Amino acid sequence: MNDATQRQLADAYRDALLEDTLPFWLQHGVDHKFGGVITSLDAAGNVIDTDKGVWQQCRFAWLLGELHNNLKADETWLRVAQRCMDFVDRNCFDPLDGRLWFQVTRTGEPLRKRRYAFSESFAAIAYGELAQATGDDLAAQKAERLFRRFLNHHLFSPEAKSKFTETRPMRSLGFPMIGIATAQQLRDSINYPGADDCIDRLIDLIRRFHIREDLEVVLENVGVDGQVLDHFDGRLLNPGHAIECSWFLMQEGQHRGDRDLQQLGCRMLDWMWQRGWDDDHGGLFSFVDLSGKPVSEYWHDMKFWWPHCEAVIATLMAYQLTGDARYARWYRQVHDWAHDHFADPERGEWFGYLHHDGTVSSQLKGNLWKGPFHLPRMQLICSQLLGDRR
Amino acid sequence: MNDATQRQLADAYRDALLEDTLPFWLQHGVDHKFGGVITSLDAAGNVIDTDKGVWQQCRFAWLLGELHNNLKADETWLRVAQRCMDFVDRNCFDPLDGRLWFQVTRTGEPLRKRRYAFSESFAAIAYGELAQATGDDLAAQKAERLFRRFLNHHLFSPEAKSKFTETRPMRSLGFPMIGIATAQQLRDSINYPGADDCIDRLIDLIRRFHIREDLEVVLENVGVDGQVLDHFDGRLLNPGHAIECSWFLMQEGQHRGDRDLQQLGCRMLDWMWQRGWDDDHGGLFSFVDLSGKPVSEYWHDMKFWWPHCEAVIATLMAYQLTGDARYARWYRQVHDWAHDHFADPERGEWFGYLHHDGTVSSQLKGNLWKGPFHLPRMQLICSQLLGDRR
Repeated sequence: MNDATQRQLADAYRDALLEDTLPFWLQHGVDHKFGGVITSLDAAGNVIDTDKGVWQQCRFAWLLGELHNNLKADETWLRVAQRCMDFVDRNCFDPLDGRLWFQVTRTGEPLRKRRYAFSESFAAIAYGELAQATGDDLAAQKAERLFRRFLNHHLFSPEAKSKFTETRPMRSLGFPMIGIATAQQLRDSINYPGADDCIDRLIDLIRRFHIREDLEVVLENVGVDGQVLDHFDGRLLNPGHAIECSWFLMQEGQHRGDRDLQQLGCRMLDWMWQRGWDDDHGGLFSFVDLSGKPVSEYWHDMKFWWPHCEAVIATLMAYQLTGDARYARWYRQVHDWAHDHFADPERGEWFGYLHHDGTVSSQLKGNLWKGPFHLPRMQLICSQLLGDRR
Repeated sequence: MNDATQRQLADAYRDALLEDTLPFWLQHGVDHKFGGVITSLDAAGNVIDTDKGVWQQCRFAWLLGELHNNLKADETWLRVAQRCMDFVDRNCFDPLDGRLWFQVTRTGEPLRKRRYAFSESFAAIAYGELAQATGDDLAAQKAERLFRRFLNHHLFSPEAKSKFTETRPMRSLGFPMIGIATAQQLRDSINYPGADDCIDRLIDLIRRFHIREDLEVVLENVGVDGQVLDHFDGRLLNPGHAIECSWFLMQEGQHRGDRDLQQLGCRMLDWMWQRGWDDDHGGLFSFVDLSGKPVSEYWHDMKFWWPHCEAVIATLMAYQLTGDARYARWYRQVHDWAHDHFADPERGEWFGYLHHDGTVSSQLKGNLWKGPFHLPRMQLICSQLLGDRR
């Protein structure tokens, strides 16, 4: 890619972020009456369910804080972020165990808690950005405390795995990979002292248990000693997840000047791109089977927005780290396919769920899982990677 | 439909049942080493996951017992059914609370329990058929006890609803409709004395809470007083489920000579066919929204095998009860579409999961949810309805 192309792309990401994605959520999602954000929106941005996802309160607050701290200072963004976390503070902690809910009503009554503690990890990075923006020590303390709670819950609480008995215990990639990304964010925002050490340990978990050089694969779920479980869950590969993890490691490798870690991230991308890209219709499959057997989840070949956002970042980062033309090719391939199929230029933002053939399956712009996170994060990071740090 | 057509169809169902569906599972699924049945099979019938679903142990045992008791006596079928329920007896009850597991390993170690007690309802009908076939009083007692446990669990146990808090309590159609079908089976098999009374109460729940004549709809999830909850869950319609329920009510209406109940079943079919049939690609959607808004479940427009089996039964039954040519048309429409798209004449049985456009999405012939139940039950019932009671 020459300089002009890079500048053009950087501008396009930044414009899309600031003139399309962000206005879509600020205009349609912000709840001016009760605080926080409502993310269940149809194609035009109409609210179709007023329930609030705790992940999304925290992710939106993180995004706005990150933009305020790293792109340009904007008091409106900061105020909305603050109001999201005020809503969380006021309504989203279960007083009985101190854990965060997953879903609450518009006014903040609890509806659902999940076994795992990802709400906690997203709250941690949101408080981190607020602490950085305002210098508020209390927010920094909250960020640290929630991150420790996330780690402890996944490392020590039997509740985190209670869907299954102890007959066939499993390790899943989600915990270490989200742990790494959270620690990276807290290192940037509040200079979290334990970040490097924590990231070391979590990368070690991924290296020991999820990365199989012999099979050229990142395993999503493994036995406690990293063994392949020859069952649906054990053979299930999640290319989007593994590719997201690959750029967390490339980024860490770049931060540390660790070539070995950068190359590991690139290999993870290589393997999962090869396994996950659909040569017939384009796009990344949601799930594939390690051995090519049928996957039990029936939506396995649908194309979701978030793996494509993650693959855009990962391929661009791999290209910049290695200069390998193959990554530039993959980057344009997934960038173009995603923008051609997910984007809704007329009404803004992206659709989230496509059929296997790339046609739009659902008019949803958001729900409890899709909100202002993967797409704007990709737009921000790609504009930064391509040199747009104005 | 003239007599010759009816005879031809009856023969076709019976042949498919006895020469295709049943041999597929008997040949590929039966576990001769540890007992029970393995239902996770690929297109050719190869085992791709050895875990055993408790639903499927019980449903296969029910099917084989039902065939033995109502189609023709066959000691092999009876022995396999017995071995499925021996496996359940030996391995599938949690000694701590007496409840059934949902998923166990091939050798019977527990893997997963669900909040709801549908395993119990399927075990009840399986023991009922065994009791009828062998005269075994103990099996009859087990059937009654498990059915009462199913009712009590769903009526009184807070565990049955523990995924959500009590902020917005919901009633779901699954409990009363499966309760009706179970009571109908136990009335036939063991002459269960409480059946009529129980069915009355469950029909009353469905009439009061799930049937909305004013909206011409069967609501899958409602508030405790039957109110529409204007959220994703509350607006979610499950046409296949409601159509399955419609023929349970038509059947009950016919059993009792109750025209009103027969007509109610037909109206439920009318509403849900209109809402659920895909005029563009054919087949029944998995989910649709009450108000036409986007559904949150991304696989909403996929075509699953079981709603089509249920719709074949319901349309045929409605035609026979009313003589209305519209039902004959719908019956041929769904019969033809299902056989054209799901059936795999080369390797036997049906695929389970199609894309929205009717192309095959997954090569699975079975997993923990798809097993020897909806398809062979449809083939049996349709051959009986069309007069093939040889």
